[in-house]
Amino acid sequence: MNKSRLEAFSDGVFAIIITIMVLELKVPETTGWHTLMHLAPVFYGYLLSFIFVAIYWANHHHLMHTIHKVKASVIWANMFLLFSLSLVPFATGWMGVNRFEKGTVAVYGTLLAICGVSYTILSKVISHSYKQETELTKAIAKSDFKGITSLVLYISSVPIALYVSPYISLVLYAIVSVLWFIPSKAIEKALENE
Amino acid sequence: MNKSRLEAFSDGVFAIIITIMVLELKVPETTGWHTLMHLAPVFYGYLLSFIFVAIYWANHHHLMHTIHKVKASVIWANMFLLFSLSLVPFATGWMGVNRFEKGTVAVYGTLLAICGVSYTILSKVISHSYKQETELTKAIAKSDFKGITSLVLYISSVPIALYVSPYISLVLYAIVSVLWFIPSKAIEKALENE
Amino acid sequence: MNKSRLEAFSDGVFAIIITIMVLELKVPETTGWHTLMHLAPVFYGYLLSFIFVAIYWANHHHLMHTIHKVKASVIWANMFLLFSLSLVPFATGWMGVNRFEKGTVAVYGTLLAICGVSYTILSKVISHSYKQETELTKAIAKSDFKGITSLVLYISSVPIALYVSPYISLVLYAIVSVLWFIPSKAIEKALENE
Amino acid sequence: MNKSRLEAFSDGVFAIIITIMVLELKVPETTGWHTLMHLAPVFYGYLLSFIFVAIYWANHHHLMHTIHKVKASVIWANMFLLFSLSLVPFATGWMGVNRFEKGTVAVYGTLLAICGVSYTILSKVISHSYKQETELTKAIAKSDFKGITSLVLYISSVPIALYVSPYISLVLYAIVSVLWFIPSKAIEKALENE
Repeated sequence: MNKSRLEAFSDGVFAIIITIMVLELKVPETTGWHTLMHLAPVFYGYLLSFIFVAIYWANHHHLMHTIHKVKASVIWANMFLLFSLSLVPFATGWMGVNRFEKGTVAVYGTLLAICGVSYTILSKVISHSYKQETELTKAIAKSDFKGITSLVLYISSVPIALYVSPYISLVLYAIVSVLWFIPSKAIEKALENE
Repeated sequence: MNKSRLEAFSDGVFAIIITIMVLELKVPETTGWHTLMHLAPVFYGYLLSFIFVAIYWANHHHLMHTIHKVKASVIWANMFLLFSLSLVPFATGWMGVNRFEKGTVAVYGTLLAICGVSYTILSKVISHSYKQETELTKAIAKSDFKGITSLVLYISSVPIALYVSPYISLVLYAIVSVLWFIPSKAIEKALENE
Repeated sequence: MNKSRLEAFSDGVFAIIITIMVLELKVPETTGWHTLMHLAPVFYGYLLSFIFVAIYWANHHHLMHTIHKVKASVIWANMFLLFSLSLVPFATGWMGVNRFEKGTVAVYGTLLAICGVSYTILSKVISHSYKQETELTKAIAKSDFKGITSLVLYISSVPIALYVSPYISLVLYAIVSVLWFIPSKAIEKALENE
Repeated sequence: MNKSRLEAFSDGVFAIIITIMVLELKVPETTGWHTLMHLAPVFYGYLLSFIFVAIYWANHHHLMHTIHKVKASVIWANMFLLFSLSLVPFATGWMGVNRFEKGTVAVYGTLLAICGVSYTILSKVISHSYKQETELTKAIAKSDFKGITSLVLYISSVPIALYVSPYISLVLYAIVSVLWFIPSKAIEKALENE
């Protein structure tokens, strides 16, 4: 029961984060193709962040599936994750409005890295409260590989944006999103067998 | 359990999309009948999009009723639908603020077509994971007719808005909404018999 | 199951409506007592509308308690109620920003009357699908008295705002809110006995 | 069942309050370190208020755990709490935008005190409807100590902000948040034994 309320609250926050990002796509008072094209970077930023938040939601969903009792440590680790994610609309908007200026891309990459770290913390806090190992917990543990790869790419993207090119960083973010897009067969199977 | 969380998240996103659209009805600092009348196109756009999103919600509700296990493919098809729908407030606002300028109506029609396609994809992805045919799944399959008619009207509305008149396109959208407003007797009956 | 999703979606919309109203309380860039006092009418409007939406939520909650199967007619009557309520933030903001100018108060009263009518429709649609009369359905039917009194006061408030004084209309709204604030003993008892 | 809807609605409002606060972090159209630094006070205010709302959510969660039937008095005490909390984004934004000007900090402290009082009222209203004392209700009663300490600090912060220094008040708020951050062992244990 506890758990369902934590999920409901988290789902609410996820749903709001993912939806208020679209408010950065400010309705223009002019019309025509040129107007739409001018919004393209904001749109691309929105698309990218939508995918990232969606990936976090899907993984959060698997993670929560493994716990039964909600401890204070889980609540606060979860809050830290939600706090980091709540900054995504700001960082996305800043990057989009300033058309991927290198500093804004570096800040975006830093924030993604913070989100990644906070997700890892939540994952560790939950795994400490497992009563027993299940197929699902093992499958999630394996997905740590994806998590570490993502973190490395996020952190690399910061100096790359600043000193090489922000566009290379954007390509790295796209690679990370594709990486997570591929569903983990182990998790799928574990969920099916439950 | 999985499914209920997907529903909760989707409901949250639907609720937010439908409600933030009203924020495009910017509170005017002047008063009087004239001020209200000036907002009429934005209001009409809001009404139209409210009905469309409500229709999607009601159908989503029937669709979700047929699945038991949530696979990754369902999650991502659902995310694509939510992403398309999340752009509706932007397109609605753009069309309303620019008083149904032909280009904005064409973009609105294109977006509705994309939403229709993403809904069809979700529907197909779910039907592939059916364990067995039920009365409800058959009733939903029949409602494909409505879906195809809608798509044809949406797609037609784009050149009509650009080369004939955006007002004819608006009439087409109103026709589609009435089409969906009429409840499917087959679905109603199938739900009742469950 | 159907019903719980209708409730979840409605709760989401209620929660968002009640919360985005506060966004009309625009953060001022000046400080001091004078600045706060300048916001007083917007604040009073927010307080009033918060109470109204809260009353609708509480009654919606009782109404939904009486149904078991969700029909298309219930979904659409509910959507009409949510649509009417979604306009409350706009009407509230317009009234507050223009410091209770008579026209804005008349529009606010008209909207409250529309919300009242849509609630009555939902209530009738649901009562048609009752399988049997219960203590709760009877108690809710009795609360129709409150509903009719409210409607009469809302409708009266429109000409009063326009031709006498908008402040009298505001007093009428306050009276209606007090009327609903007093919990119905019959409903309370019926819920307890269930 | 009643209760779960009250929780769902409250969770929705909590989720929205906590997330719309981030909208005060307006996306700047300039870039660079200086721009980010300029947003620092707004960010600090957001962080502080996020923690406060999160603390209220976690405690609300425990409080709701103890009730079974939702009475009208509980609904209205809960609405009063949600209303107070809904003003937090406004007070936070006002304080941040005006870089902790003493008057804005005093208003923020007053609002936190009001939230504290409304939480205490909700807690008392619920405890009156307890059927019997449980380990959890006793543990929550003990946490009154924290509540009273917080209230004393909030109320003290108002004259301190006005006549001494708003920064001392900010330190007091940080102390309160740390106080609540430390989980109550008694509540944890009571929840585990249930």
